[in-house]
Amino acid sequence: MRDVAIVSAGMTRFGELWESSLRDLFVEAAVEALAGAGADHVDELFVGNMSGGQFVGQEHLGPLMADHLGMAGIPATRVESACASGGAALRQGFASVASGMSDLVLVAGVEKMTDGADVTNVLATAADQETEVYHGITFPGLYAMIARAHMAKHGTTEEDLSWVSVKAHRLGAMNPKAQFRREVTLAEVMASTMVSDPLRLLHCSPVSDGAAAVLLCPLADAKRYTDRPVKIVASGGATGSMALADRKDPAVLDAVVTAAERAYGMAGLAPKDIQVAEVHDCFSIAEICCVEALGFVCEGEGADAVRWGMTALGGKIPVNTSGGLKSKGHPVGATGVAQTIEIFEQLRGEAGDRQVEGAHRGLAQNMGGSGASSVVHIFERV
Amino acid sequence: MRDVAIVSAGMTRFGELWESSLRDLFVEAAVEALAGAGADHVDELFVGNMSGGQFVGQEHLGPLMADHLGMAGIPATRVESACASGGAALRQGFASVASGMSDLVLVAGVEKMTDGADVTNVLATAADQETEVYHGITFPGLYAMIARAHMAKHGTTEEDLSWVSVKAHRLGAMNPKAQFRREVTLAEVMASTMVSDPLRLLHCSPVSDGAAAVLLCPLADAKRYTDRPVKIVASGGATGSMALADRKDPAVLDAVVTAAERAYGMAGLAPKDIQVAEVHDCFSIAEICCVEALGFVCEGEGADAVRWGMTALGGKIPVNTSGGLKSKGHPVGATGVAQTIEIFEQLRGEAGDRQVEGAHRGLAQNMGGSGASSVVHIFERV
Repeated sequence: MRDVAIVSAGMTRFGELWESSLRDLFVEAAVEALAGAGADHVDELFVGNMSGGQFVGQEHLGPLMADHLGMAGIPATRVESACASGGAALRQGFASVASGMSDLVLVAGVEKMTDGADVTNVLATAADQETEVYHGITFPGLYAMIARAHMAKHGTTEEDLSWVSVKAHRLGAMNPKAQFRREVTLAEVMASTMVSDPLRLLHCSPVSDGAAAVLLCPLADAKRYTDRPVKIVASGGATGSMALADRKDPAVLDAVVTAAERAYGMAGLAPKDIQVAEVHDCFSIAEICCVEALGFVCEGEGADAVRWGMTALGGKIPVNTSGGLKSKGHPVGATGVAQTIEIFEQLRGEAGDRQVEGAHRGLAQNMGGSGASSVVHIFERV
Repeated sequence: MRDVAIVSAGMTRFGELWESSLRDLFVEAAVEALAGAGADHVDELFVGNMSGGQFVGQEHLGPLMADHLGMAGIPATRVESACASGGAALRQGFASVASGMSDLVLVAGVEKMTDGADVTNVLATAADQETEVYHGITFPGLYAMIARAHMAKHGTTEEDLSWVSVKAHRLGAMNPKAQFRREVTLAEVMASTMVSDPLRLLHCSPVSDGAAAVLLCPLADAKRYTDRPVKIVASGGATGSMALADRKDPAVLDAVVTAAERAYGMAGLAPKDIQVAEVHDCFSIAEICCVEALGFVCEGEGADAVRWGMTALGGKIPVNTSGGLKSKGHPVGATGVAQTIEIFEQLRGEAGDRQVEGAHRGLAQNMGGSGASSVVHIFERV
């Protein structure tokens, strides 16, 4: 396998972007990534997207996006793993460069969610249709059950969940691409509308439009495109039980544990070797479960990590310096690539007010559904 | 890159399979492929599927299918490129094994189209939503325009289109997995209901349910699983203009031409080196355009090829010995993998009455939309 580097990135603002269509968003992010590397062509394109068909009546995004980028001809493939589609696309781009099939690969994630689709029901198609969705449950309900399981087992409180949101907005307020650039107080979070007990509105990531793109090449070629490449040192993918009811312990995200083990194993690293991480906080309970599953803290200590500032900027392991899905926004197919961009910028020292000093290695963890799929990538400054 | 082999295959019957759900179809094909190799576990799964979300309300097929196969835990990813989703999944499986990321990979294609969805409109999401579908066109109309362009340029006739269907049904009648196991006469095809002038009902592939799966591993390990592995000697992927109106010549499938050039180049082979091929005959005009685009005949000679028996069983280059999409059926996400299985069986000498004598190398060409994406794989007996 060849070593693989990220040499450039591009990203739209996340938000309710009514003036931009699905293809507009993609092109904006892709052109920025290409321009950053001085590249006007790529060998292959991977597009992460969850539900173009259901959201805006558009499948077949590989050729559509290649065409609108002015690159009709290149191999172009859409990859889907629900809200982990962006991370899954990065994994395929990594394999393409690592295998030698392609030398310069664009990986982009994109989603257009605000064009009138019944968003909650579209997102629910990422859960088990026959044993979950048919009976009426949607994602706030599934994550509320995960939260209740964590509370019952570890004594996690509504206040713990709320500190995750406070931290997310504090960091997102510093991110010019974030959907919500304002801080929220603990009192505001705890007084926000109840969505699915115990999850309130400000415990939930929003409905968003957006796109994000990164350019990959063999590490040996990276200096052609940038002085500061970032190496992808590991790609770990895993699945777990699709239905929440089938899991041994709903408070443990098995797929994240396994994907992380594979990534650490491939890199020959441990959680302590990571200085900055983006994790999949689609709901605030998810961040708590993910920091445990990634081994940053022991099981049951995820709430303490946020409460005592361990995952804050300046803490032992800053998590979601971008503002996370909660504050930055969550255009589902774009999220995994946007997480990667935050780590890319952190490792290049370009994260501005959000910069983690001395960050040498970073991790991005993307997750689909109620955690049935997860992809973990580890990155290193070179 | 490591050499990659197919060591086993499994496939459901294609047809209106009302007794089986999407996951049932997948599991049936996957279990057959695993059993054929004596394998009870794989390292990674790729699922080709066009529109589970729109057809049956189910996205996130990677973890769902891994779970229902009893393999929750493995990395599992869905790949979509409209009707080329199966071929695109094979390409990702190939990259995974070639790169060294995984050693034993299951590639499956699956689609469930007969569960009540508005099939024509779902399929239309593979065309350009903004410049084509919004204005009312669907796929029979798009391929009718391709047919009219071919007729105008090359003098192709309705009778030529009909001979493609006659050949398809003659071969499909011999395929126990085919949806339509009966021959049709030229007169029947030419008297069938007009769908979109000049395309009649018997020029169109049907709406189908079905699944197909193949097992890949490094060629060096193949003898552990089978005495007769088939090597994947090349994977060529390409795109072309998404909208038909943007193409220089609508009678030429640019993406197929490019994907074929890449595959021949990777293999160091020419069209004359291929003894059997499966091509994407979603409509009968498509087979005519594809045999030209693949270089089996010169441009404009695709109709002659079928009329004079060159592509029949016993001809110079037998095409669609499985019965093709027309007679075997076209569960869109499964098609690319099913094409691969026909070539796999031909190269192993297992195609029964449809066997091409002395077949040493075969090709499978899968296509999305009106030809905006295509994947070409070349296989060799070892």
